[in-house]
Amino acid sequence: MIDALYAELDTAYPEMVEIRRHLHMNPEPSFHEIKTARYIRNYYEQLGVDVKHSVGGNGVVATIQGAKPGKTVALRADFDALPIQDQKENVPYKSTVDGVMHACGHDGHTATLLVLGKTLHNMRDQLEGTYVLIHQHAEELVPGGAKSMIEAGVLDGVDAIFGTHLWSTTPFGRIDTRVGPIMAAADSFELKIQGRGGHGASPHETIDAVVIGSQIVSNLQPLVSRRVDPLESAVLSVGSFVAQNPFNIIADQAILSGTVRSFKEDVRSLMETEMERVIEGTSMANNSRYEFHFKRGYPPVVNHEKETLYVKDIAETVPGVEQVYDCPPQMGGEDFAYYLEEIPGAFFFTGAMPDGEVFPHHHPKFDFKEEAMLLAAKTLGAAAVNFHK
Amino acid sequence: MIDALYAELDTAYPEMVEIRRHLHMNPEPSFHEIKTARYIRNYYEQLGVDVKHSVGGNGVVATIQGAKPGKTVALRADFDALPIQDQKENVPYKSTVDGVMHACGHDGHTATLLVLGKTLHNMRDQLEGTYVLIHQHAEELVPGGAKSMIEAGVLDGVDAIFGTHLWSTTPFGRIDTRVGPIMAAADSFELKIQGRGGHGASPHETIDAVVIGSQIVSNLQPLVSRRVDPLESAVLSVGSFVAQNPFNIIADQAILSGTVRSFKEDVRSLMETEMERVIEGTSMANNSRYEFHFKRGYPPVVNHEKETLYVKDIAETVPGVEQVYDCPPQMGGEDFAYYLEEIPGAFFFTGAMPDGEVFPHHHPKFDFKEEAMLLAAKTLGAAAVNFHK
Amino acid sequence: MIDALYAELDTAYPEMVEIRRHLHMNPEPSFHEIKTARYIRNYYEQLGVDVKHSVGGNGVVATIQGAKPGKTVALRADFDALPIQDQKENVPYKSTVDGVMHACGHDGHTATLLVLGKTLHNMRDQLEGTYVLIHQHAEELVPGGAKSMIEAGVLDGVDAIFGTHLWSTTPFGRIDTRVGPIMAAADSFELKIQGRGGHGASPHETIDAVVIGSQIVSNLQPLVSRRVDPLESAVLSVGSFVAQNPFNIIADQAILSGTVRSFKEDVRSLMETEMERVIEGTSMANNSRYEFHFKRGYPPVVNHEKETLYVKDIAETVPGVEQVYDCPPQMGGEDFAYYLEEIPGAFFFTGAMPDGEVFPHHHPKFDFKEEAMLLAAKTLGAAAVNFHK
Amino acid sequence: MIDALYAELDTAYPEMVEIRRHLHMNPEPSFHEIKTARYIRNYYEQLGVDVKHSVGGNGVVATIQGAKPGKTVALRADFDALPIQDQKENVPYKSTVDGVMHACGHDGHTATLLVLGKTLHNMRDQLEGTYVLIHQHAEELVPGGAKSMIEAGVLDGVDAIFGTHLWSTTPFGRIDTRVGPIMAAADSFELKIQGRGGHGASPHETIDAVVIGSQIVSNLQPLVSRRVDPLESAVLSVGSFVAQNPFNIIADQAILSGTVRSFKEDVRSLMETEMERVIEGTSMANNSRYEFHFKRGYPPVVNHEKETLYVKDIAETVPGVEQVYDCPPQMGGEDFAYYLEEIPGAFFFTGAMPDGEVFPHHHPKFDFKEEAMLLAAKTLGAAAVNFHK
Repeated sequence: MIDALYAELDTAYPEMVEIRRHLHMNPEPSFHEIKTARYIRNYYEQLGVDVKHSVGGNGVVATIQGAKPGKTVALRADFDALPIQDQKENVPYKSTVDGVMHACGHDGHTATLLVLGKTLHNMRDQLEGTYVLIHQHAEELVPGGAKSMIEAGVLDGVDAIFGTHLWSTTPFGRIDTRVGPIMAAADSFELKIQGRGGHGASPHETIDAVVIGSQIVSNLQPLVSRRVDPLESAVLSVGSFVAQNPFNIIADQAILSGTVRSFKEDVRSLMETEMERVIEGTSMANNSRYEFHFKRGYPPVVNHEKETLYVKDIAETVPGVEQVYDCPPQMGGEDFAYYLEEIPGAFFFTGAMPDGEVFPHHHPKFDFKEEAMLLAAKTLGAAAVNFHK
Repeated sequence: MIDALYAELDTAYPEMVEIRRHLHMNPEPSFHEIKTARYIRNYYEQLGVDVKHSVGGNGVVATIQGAKPGKTVALRADFDALPIQDQKENVPYKSTVDGVMHACGHDGHTATLLVLGKTLHNMRDQLEGTYVLIHQHAEELVPGGAKSMIEAGVLDGVDAIFGTHLWSTTPFGRIDTRVGPIMAAADSFELKIQGRGGHGASPHETIDAVVIGSQIVSNLQPLVSRRVDPLESAVLSVGSFVAQNPFNIIADQAILSGTVRSFKEDVRSLMETEMERVIEGTSMANNSRYEFHFKRGYPPVVNHEKETLYVKDIAETVPGVEQVYDCPPQMGGEDFAYYLEEIPGAFFFTGAMPDGEVFPHHHPKFDFKEEAMLLAAKTLGAAAVNFHK
Repeated sequence: MIDALYAELDTAYPEMVEIRRHLHMNPEPSFHEIKTARYIRNYYEQLGVDVKHSVGGNGVVATIQGAKPGKTVALRADFDALPIQDQKENVPYKSTVDGVMHACGHDGHTATLLVLGKTLHNMRDQLEGTYVLIHQHAEELVPGGAKSMIEAGVLDGVDAIFGTHLWSTTPFGRIDTRVGPIMAAADSFELKIQGRGGHGASPHETIDAVVIGSQIVSNLQPLVSRRVDPLESAVLSVGSFVAQNPFNIIADQAILSGTVRSFKEDVRSLMETEMERVIEGTSMANNSRYEFHFKRGYPPVVNHEKETLYVKDIAETVPGVEQVYDCPPQMGGEDFAYYLEEIPGAFFFTGAMPDGEVFPHHHPKFDFKEEAMLLAAKTLGAAAVNFHK
Repeated sequence: MIDALYAELDTAYPEMVEIRRHLHMNPEPSFHEIKTARYIRNYYEQLGVDVKHSVGGNGVVATIQGAKPGKTVALRADFDALPIQDQKENVPYKSTVDGVMHACGHDGHTATLLVLGKTLHNMRDQLEGTYVLIHQHAEELVPGGAKSMIEAGVLDGVDAIFGTHLWSTTPFGRIDTRVGPIMAAADSFELKIQGRGGHGASPHETIDAVVIGSQIVSNLQPLVSRRVDPLESAVLSVGSFVAQNPFNIIADQAILSGTVRSFKEDVRSLMETEMERVIEGTSMANNSRYEFHFKRGYPPVVNHEKETLYVKDIAETVPGVEQVYDCPPQMGGEDFAYYLEEIPGAFFFTGAMPDGEVFPHHHPKFDFKEEAMLLAAKTLGAAAVNFHK
């Protein structure tokens, strides 16, 4: 039966490409995916698949019932685009929307899941269990779409969830995943240091925000080097430090901002708490004031052991998959994290490196190898239909 | 005779006010003082005073020969204005030039010296010695006008020089001066820290310019706290620290700038040398590169002991001077410094605090008490005509 | 046959205890293990086992030849004690040597391997392959005994090596191991900062070693927080900072020392190189001198994947082993590292938590549960005799 | 009359030397000056001078009444020695007391004042006013003797006070003094940083006292570089930083100590307050605790303007005084400060550089040129007897 699935997907591959290119030419930014959601809904409705729309926002959920009893498996694909100007050259499917672009491959995710859904629908008489196809909006923008879709009940009765990301910088033919944390919690922060400005020749009448900001940057280093367990990972980057003044003026204010990355909730909380402690203490030492905002992004994506090993085993058997790689975790974030906080499941990367020049995700010239969609569909499909054994 | 001088100045005070207000309404920025220079030149020419123009730039020098033998004394007044928009309210003499303003009192200095010059000219038959009246352009902008006027020979044969600054923040009726350093060397610097930028989640692939800049700011503090003799004064203010980036980007570059103030050449040189040492060492420690420019402003204004005590004694006798105050040095700079590097002399502040609200020099609402011009003229005049005893 | 091995070990357990207690009462410090080495040698000689002594120092190596062809497997036990005063109460086997104590369980390792060796010798007619029993001296003291024994040829022709450490702080019945780094590189460093001392009131005549040392401590923090890949582990601890002076004297010198831990050679080299860079640059910034000694301890113990998974599988089958635990790496060091740099193999911890109060390794009251020796012998023995399949 | 005073002092000079050498051979440490006090008392009693002993401790005060009316002038000499072993060679007057030495010249001060007192007593019929000769104990050890002698009333009715210090490092023939601060407030501090110790490999379980101490040392630098008016002087030296541990242990505690010098009470208070602020804030930032003790030494010695100019004028007329030098302030402390907090007066240094090798005060080989006592006596004497004009 799995071979039948593979064969049907092979046959449907041109449609996958067609859908992907259509979406690529008509991108919509996060939380504004009106046409895209309608497109997905129409696709399923025309097939006669049970589909719900406006789920937790612009989300769309299709459900396919196998003929035989079995578990309920969810598959998820996100469909929002980015506020980036498409700068690709010489491709017929370039974005037609100014300043909006599918620069992260969500068009491919959607095409993959739609065609896989159609295939599962066609094979439903042979299938066990239930298949919940989650087309999620707004992955790119906090608070994301996953959370509200979960609140809307998309995981109710679901036994496990699987998802993938087409990845332009890993080789085609390779599936990457790992047990445990696979993508980071990506938080950000802003800090305003309020001193008291004055003339450069009279430091004693001022509270020098540049000196204070510099102390804070230095004093934050030991959070990673001393307070986090050396066996855990954490990053604290102050990317921006701005106190712009004429040369003979002492800074009234300094504005700092940056990002914090971690893979575990306790490390993440530690960083948040200890950052404020360092900032508060250093401000106190300097008689200055501060405003600190730590903005939580998505939690870390933490793969469940059993489901991840299961996906790895399945992936080894998928035709076209040449390597299943136990990858290190990535420092980027993904709101797939929320699904895995609720139910078992696994997230994996499907290698999609194009043949020519390679551009990273979110680059204005980003593109991926379309054949990777087929491998993604086969792996997700095999993981879903085999899950009932 | 000195009483005659005072009396004639009293009589001429309305002219002083008139000249001052004319200049105030027609300000010209440093190195562009064409009409002002012509005004000064015409004033002397109409009196029949020997006058040279275009001296070392826009400088004007008048010479008055007393009937009796004596020393040669120079008096100096600067006449450039500032690129500041006049925001004074309710005064008839507001600047008529957009974005240019006499916000430092140089209009008053010029009016004072012109009327004093006329008075000396009128009294020349009773005077001993020679009076060199230096009307200097471009005090506000490095490299200033003093240096080029000296190179043009204005101090040739001069025995001593005196100068004053009308001062809006010290009380009317008070003359401030001191032996030794009275105004600082005001130097500036710019520092570009060149790291290697990158993604906020991958610090190990970067050289973080914000961390390096912060270390440099902290490491510079001990220059003042440890390397300068605690009995000497030095200020090092990093007024500006700019590394502006998106929150998830590690800074490629940071641009720092600021000012260094000192009163002695050895302290000044120490600061310059040691700043570079700290920057070079910290850059080495971080494997980063830097560009450092230390830009010397004017040297410190160092009053000569004998001439300063002389001026203090004279000032005590001037009608209307209520206090001669041994002031602490000021951290600001003045190119009068160059004259005192060449010949003996003294610089003093003439209290000119207005009756109403007080604004500091260079403020868009700056103004001064005009009667102070009369005290300045009397003190400078008395210092000059008595110098031959 | 494996059951026969287990049975014979069960029978010989009292002898294991007897040997262990004999050694415990007669400890010898690293590189001075004369009697211990002779004891081991005699044990094998009395059995008629082929044994070499003085191998790479005090090392002893016994070789047992199975009757059937097979691979060559090495098992290693270390036998040196520590310069610690035994403070155990109420045990009949307390150390009889003042200031020397088996406070790390090497007595148990030796008893385990001796009795296992005797068992293998007794069963040699049924065994495949060759068994190299490495009794290593001087594990506790850099440069250790492993390196010189390897240089003396103990690994020649050996296909794989296994070793264990009895561990007093993990539960009895549990075997801990992991693929990849399992124990750290434990390096140390000493830093002498040479400034120029002087009177506390005259900082400008000095080069203040306390200020410089403090800058170095702070400047070292970004090595871990910024320069090491956040997915890797590294620790840099400055444990000691000594500049002892009367209150009114500025420090001439500061002596700093500490430790660096890492799990990978590239991280370790990075730390060594970058530490010196930070120290050199900070010294340059302060016009001071330094002496820096980075003393490499043992390399990280890095378990080979295949052999580790093999040991885990075997351990699951050993009677009495209740759990095989995929442990996180430990920050301590072990010269077993050198064997694994040469040939495949695996190191594991045998849980030996005593029933009463638990003391960590190197504590003057350290003890372990003796039954753990039996589990260690069975696991090592099973790993060795099964290796030929 | 003043010439008679000089002549009598010249005649009595051998006695001055004799007394000085006697005292030098019989030094007594601060607060234990029993024999010295009795020697002084006996000297005056034998002359028939009115003398009080045990004044505020071991203090001795003689009073000489001139025949004519006039003001009351106090002269002060201190008489305690130091806990230093005399290491002078080849002098007949070396200390006979082990571990105690007049290494600061107080023996000379006493001899000077005794012989001057005798001279004034002999000349009392010609003198105006009253002469209070304050022989003070315990200058070298906080809280000093000045304070308790003042509390005992030695300044009651006194119009002005003068004092001098023989100074081994300034040329013989020179008198140094200045208006305003001439000697510093010399305070000390101790800081205990309480972290939480632990193993060098597990920083996250500790609170690292070395890292915290280093941050504090760095964060204290801006007190001098930013918070004190750059026209004022302040020194903060952390002379001692002690956290001594084995290389692989993270410091539980660090003990820091040092000194703070200043010339004005507001600067001094600022330093004390701001030090604690920096320490408290940095401790808060690191979740550590601290104990901070700021121990005030003597206040700054601040010369009164009128009395100092008076002494300078007088000194110019003293035979043998070749230069009266307007010296910079010294960073050392003196409890003469307390007298000047109560009444007008001046303190000056009498150059006493010996002919051979020069050793600074408190050096085990310290000595001074004895002829300087004569200049000191003449200057003090002239200042006293002329004060009534």
